Amino acid sequence: MAERLKARGLLGEMAAEFVGTMILILFGVGVVAQVAAAGIGDHDSIAWAWGLGVTLGVYVAARISGAHLNPAVTVALAVFKGFSWRKVLPYSLAQTAGAFVAALIVRWNYAEVLAKADPGHTIKTQGVFSTLPGNGTLPVGTWGAFRDQVIGTAILLLLILAVSDVRNSPPAANLAPFVVGLVVVAIGMAWGTNAGYAINPARDFGPRLASFLTGYGTAWRDQYGQLYFWVPIVAPVIGGLIGAGLYQVVVARFLPPGTGPEVGRVPSPADYETA
Amino acid sequence: MAERLKARGLLGEMAAEFVGTMILILFGVGVVAQVAAAGIGDHDSIAWAWGLGVTLGVYVAARISGAHLNPAVTVALAVFKGFSWRKVLPYSLAQTAGAFVAALIVRWNYAEVLAKADPGHTIKTQGVFSTLPGNGTLPVGTWGAFRDQVIGTAILLLLILAVSDVRNSPPAANLAPFVVGLVVVAIGMAWGTNAGYAINPARDFGPRLASFLTGYGTAWRDQYGQLYFWVPIVAPVIGGLIGAGLYQVVVARFLPPGTGPEVGRVPSPADYETA
Amino acid sequence: MAERLKARGLLGEMAAEFVGTMILILFGVGVVAQVAAAGIGDHDSIAWAWGLGVTLGVYVAARISGAHLNPAVTVALAVFKGFSWRKVLPYSLAQTAGAFVAALIVRWNYAEVLAKADPGHTIKTQGVFSTLPGNGTLPVGTWGAFRDQVIGTAILLLLILAVSDVRNSPPAANLAPFVVGLVVVAIGMAWGTNAGYAINPARDFGPRLASFLTGYGTAWRDQYGQLYFWVPIVAPVIGGLIGAGLYQVVVARFLPPGTGPEVGRVPSPADYETA
Amino acid sequence: MAERLKARGLLGEMAAEFVGTMILILFGVGVVAQVAAAGIGDHDSIAWAWGLGVTLGVYVAARISGAHLNPAVTVALAVFKGFSWRKVLPYSLAQTAGAFVAALIVRWNYAEVLAKADPGHTIKTQGVFSTLPGNGTLPVGTWGAFRDQVIGTAILLLLILAVSDVRNSPPAANLAPFVVGLVVVAIGMAWGTNAGYAINPARDFGPRLASFLTGYGTAWRDQYGQLYFWVPIVAPVIGGLIGAGLYQVVVARFLPPGTGPEVGRVPSPADYETA
Repeated sequence: MAERLKARGLLGEMAAEFVGTMILILFGVGVVAQVAAAGIGDHDSIAWAWGLGVTLGVYVAARISGAHLNPAVTVALAVFKGFSWRKVLPYSLAQTAGAFVAALIVRWNYAEVLAKADPGHTIKTQGVFSTLPGNGTLPVGTWGAFRDQVIGTAILLLLILAVSDVRNSPPAANLAPFVVGLVVVAIGMAWGTNAGYAINPARDFGPRLASFLTGYGTAWRDQYGQLYFWVPIVAPVIGGLIGAGLYQVVVARFLPPGTGPEVGRVPSPADYETA
Repeated sequence: MAERLKARGLLGEMAAEFVGTMILILFGVGVVAQVAAAGIGDHDSIAWAWGLGVTLGVYVAARISGAHLNPAVTVALAVFKGFSWRKVLPYSLAQTAGAFVAALIVRWNYAEVLAKADPGHTIKTQGVFSTLPGNGTLPVGTWGAFRDQVIGTAILLLLILAVSDVRNSPPAANLAPFVVGLVVVAIGMAWGTNAGYAINPARDFGPRLASFLTGYGTAWRDQYGQLYFWVPIVAPVIGGLIGAGLYQVVVARFLPPGTGPEVGRVPSPADYETA
Repeated sequence: MAERLKARGLLGEMAAEFVGTMILILFGVGVVAQVAAAGIGDHDSIAWAWGLGVTLGVYVAARISGAHLNPAVTVALAVFKGFSWRKVLPYSLAQTAGAFVAALIVRWNYAEVLAKADPGHTIKTQGVFSTLPGNGTLPVGTWGAFRDQVIGTAILLLLILAVSDVRNSPPAANLAPFVVGLVVVAIGMAWGTNAGYAINPARDFGPRLASFLTGYGTAWRDQYGQLYFWVPIVAPVIGGLIGAGLYQVVVARFLPPGTGPEVGRVPSPADYETA
Repeated sequence: MAERLKARGLLGEMAAEFVGTMILILFGVGVVAQVAAAGIGDHDSIAWAWGLGVTLGVYVAARISGAHLNPAVTVALAVFKGFSWRKVLPYSLAQTAGAFVAALIVRWNYAEVLAKADPGHTIKTQGVFSTLPGNGTLPVGTWGAFRDQVIGTAILLLLILAVSDVRNSPPAANLAPFVVGLVVVAIGMAWGTNAGYAINPARDFGPRLASFLTGYGTAWRDQYGQLYFWVPIVAPVIGGLIGAGLYQVVVARFLPPGTGPEVGRVPSPADYETA
């Protein structure tokens, strides 16, 4: 009992959030470096590797910490699912630290190709680490990016709540982490235009700091010279609350009592014949 | 009991169809905007994000409404599976409304890149929202598109009935929504030439109306100036009936009684040794 | 009892093989038409849609007929798994007929884009329907294609036996059809150079006949003018026997008695500690 | 009993490692040949086919040998999971032999297209078989490649331990082989720049030897003329130990006793409410 308490103590949870988010960013920032600096792969590679990074980070951390890997998730679960408020800050710090360390590893490993592609370490390859409005080239400003991050994170949280809700109809066989990864693949394909789909304050701030400390002087600003770093911090938290709230109000309250279809039973049209 | 009845009441079902179809279109119209207006991604992105949008929309709505998300599905289930006729219109309206709202959100979020790619909001980017014969450029007319939508939706319904039929051999662990998403991925890759694979009246009409109300004056017509909006409404309903009927006549009636292989048992060649 | 016998009778099995192979070819020939004649998608689309076509065709037919969908599979199961020899010809005919009908549907639906891309219906678009050595352009002759089809089909059958062998460690939750589809995705990506990965006599001969009957006079010959149609019939049957035999000799005889890991139990390194 | 012992004896285990690694390399080296020599597909094809090759090789070998398919995995399991040290060399030899034979088969099958793309069989197509720093073209030297292989293999082993740890939260329904394949897909997309992601001494040395024996005189050296073959042997073994050790120290010791979520139960946020 005491061992159990210790094992699930806050230190372990923070370690799990740290490693899980580190895995996410090792793949996420890694793939953008590979595509943008080395020219290997394309936008589909970026979407898939980010999504698979989420899946794999969640499998690492799920049993110990619940695998939030994202302060916007942590805050939304505190507001709507009773997650302890006292843990919100520790979780968020561990996530940001994991993202920071992972970005340093990518920065170190890809030092040669980054130096070749962008010797001055300018805004040209800063997008490897942190996001920019319109990915640095499209005509999108602060508001367009802010709006986009609210919407994108709302979609993320609505779907995370849906596919992890045992009263709804979630994937079984412990495959929810795979499906949550697919959510991020799809967001990358459909919601990556205006602001590079940070949808996660830790994912953006940790690597942004890592790039600033290793030669990217422009890290805090966008291509127009405006301070930008706050957008992918503030907007995802707001968006996450909107999406999770929407799920509670428009979907969850209509769920019948009891758990969803038993494990391994596939729903059939007949299940819904309520004529 | 009363609570259960209330919870599964028509309002909840309509809310679930609304939100599920909204998720589908947030990804589906979103990805076409990202590829066509912002130039990020390619046709494979479109096929994957539409399919994943189906998977995720189904997970959101499955327990409450059965997650039709498509009037062609609703009508086919009414004809062949006893789904209540009295619910066909409410379901179809909720689906169309969800698609409409999702398309407005995409229209709003991608306003800048759409204005940049196509300042006049012409037929050039109308394909972001609703379908055109030959995707607006290939030499396909109304009949070619109509025929294609009948066939494509027939394939869709045949496969939906197959992978949700507990007497057949469906995926277990509640992964049918994933496999139904793969159906739509494959249709996008193989049946998207002649008419942009609407295969769903709500998916096409809702966003078409949204684009018309926000500046796309050409929304109801094709590139030849013909009224076109009715094709992706009428043809999918006909095709869905053909596909579902084909499944009943050519496959379902040969199924042995009882449910298929138990959960988690994988069929082996030995199961079919009937020498 | 009598009903069961009837339901699983040869007619039902042939219907299931017909429909399952039809689904496979609706996607497989459909995607090549979309990519080659309409220019939508790329080789990855082809690999994915063929593989997903296999997955979906198997789900349609699995409970009734075992979902061979391929005479090379049927023959190999007859030789190594006791599948009734008396059913080999009926199964093969039903598979070929399903592929033939599906190819006619694709031919009909894509008539306009095929006519536009290749007005004479020459060898240029014949590859939409049936395979050619080196896909019609690479320096591969009859022997290079024959050898390739033997190897490719050997890989296919070795893996089909592996992932459907309850004494080995197959995917559970009835997801073997998904994994078999992934086999074909991977073969398309790695073994599609020399002969377009027919690896299935019905897949090749049915659509070849359909193309011949609808205007492709060159259907029976390759780009060098040699009779070629027999290669993707004979080589896959030989290859399938080699691959299935290899599995029996090199893998299956070392399997311990009893079934593999129970459903839902994931093997861990500890399972294999036999120090 | 005696039969069981015999069946699981070392010969069977070596056969399983041989065939499993052969399957991996038939797809892995096959896809690079198809992309690099025949120009069919792109880097995403390479990432997917390598990953699917891992999944399929694991399904073939899992029950008999545990499906290491990689000496870096075998060594790490010996150090951290009690795998018999006495089997480390036999396993590694069987893996290397399987990779060698598979590469010979690819070399033979793709002889014509390799001769066409690179008549002298130079370093230009040597990358089909074995890895080079910076994939032969980017400005990465021995140290950049060594460092990269340490990191990449550390990621691989950390994740293999995580998704096969019954005390953590692994995929059920025997889908860990699928998820391990996704690990390799993601590594290919994000960690393939500096050294072509060998992350496996057998994968690199076996095909390197096969290419040397069949006309590639440059096989042992990199594009700078340096001996290189030892890098993808030594660095992955070191990296594997680091990654597995990290998992033990930072994740595994915080795991609660008992196995993770039961089969088919999907974790929900509520599971982690420990306020």
